Amino acid sequence: MQRDSSGLQVLGRQECLDLLSTAPIGRIVFTDRALPAVQPVNFHLDGHFIVIRTSIGSKLAAATRHAVVAFEADEFDPESRTGWSVTAVGRSRAATDPAEIDRLAALPLAAWAPGDRGHYVVVEAEQVSGRRLTG
Amino acid sequence: MQRDSSGLQVLGRQECLDLLSTAPIGRIVFTDRALPAVQPVNFHLDGHFIVIRTSIGSKLAAATRHAVVAFEADEFDPESRTGWSVTAVGRSRAATDPAEIDRLAALPLAAWAPGDRGHYVVVEAEQVSGRRLTG
Repeated sequence: MQRDSSGLQVLGRQECLDLLSTAPIGRIVFTDRALPAVQPVNFHLDGHFIVIRTSIGSKLAAATRHAVVAFEADEFDPESRTGWSVTAVGRSRAATDPAEIDRLAALPLAAWAPGDRGHYVVVEAEQVSGRRLTG
Repeated sequence: MQRDSSGLQVLGRQECLDLLSTAPIGRIVFTDRALPAVQPVNFHLDGHFIVIRTSIGSKLAAATRHAVVAFEADEFDPESRTGWSVTAVGRSRAATDPAEIDRLAALPLAAWAPGDRGHYVVVEAEQVSGRRLTG
């Protein structure tokens, strides 16, 4: 079992993806007008692609177009001070091909927020890292 | 009650700070070697300053020195699809004054992760924004 310099257990890529697939919410991290920005979103993990539904005019859609973004999910128990976090970094893009949009629309990915959410942002989990805090 | 373009309820600054003070965990968002980076941390809200304990040699300590960072906390219920998120953006700095370090060390802020955690990063919540998802 590998530990990092902080004493946290280092997770392997497959374990990170398995944990990511269990999380209802993640946070997409991007740059908005040269400032760091972060937005929680619900998502679906499609292989090693993170799929997010948004509206085409959203700040998220604009800021993540052909950008390198980070995507983070975690789960911690404040009582036992245990938990895990996973971060994926990779290129994001908008789905524009009609066949791909049809396929993504069939994924089990309901929008939690109101409004038109027919636009899909796809983030490739190129670099994946994760840590577990064992208390 | 103000709503944003996505239909989410817009929270005022004081409500954002009140919610932030209830969160056991937040995520600090910064840039690491020109890539977006995000790390979950436990923290204490001291007025409108977010106080984080880390070790002096950590990536977090290095990357947040005199940087503008974002700090996010949220709480969502997947069943009801309700919840809130708050993001603060501001300058971060290391506490270096011995009197300030003594004061910060007396805050109710236990380190969850193992190792020496005698280094404090302080983020000023200059811009604060928050949203509530009411289902």
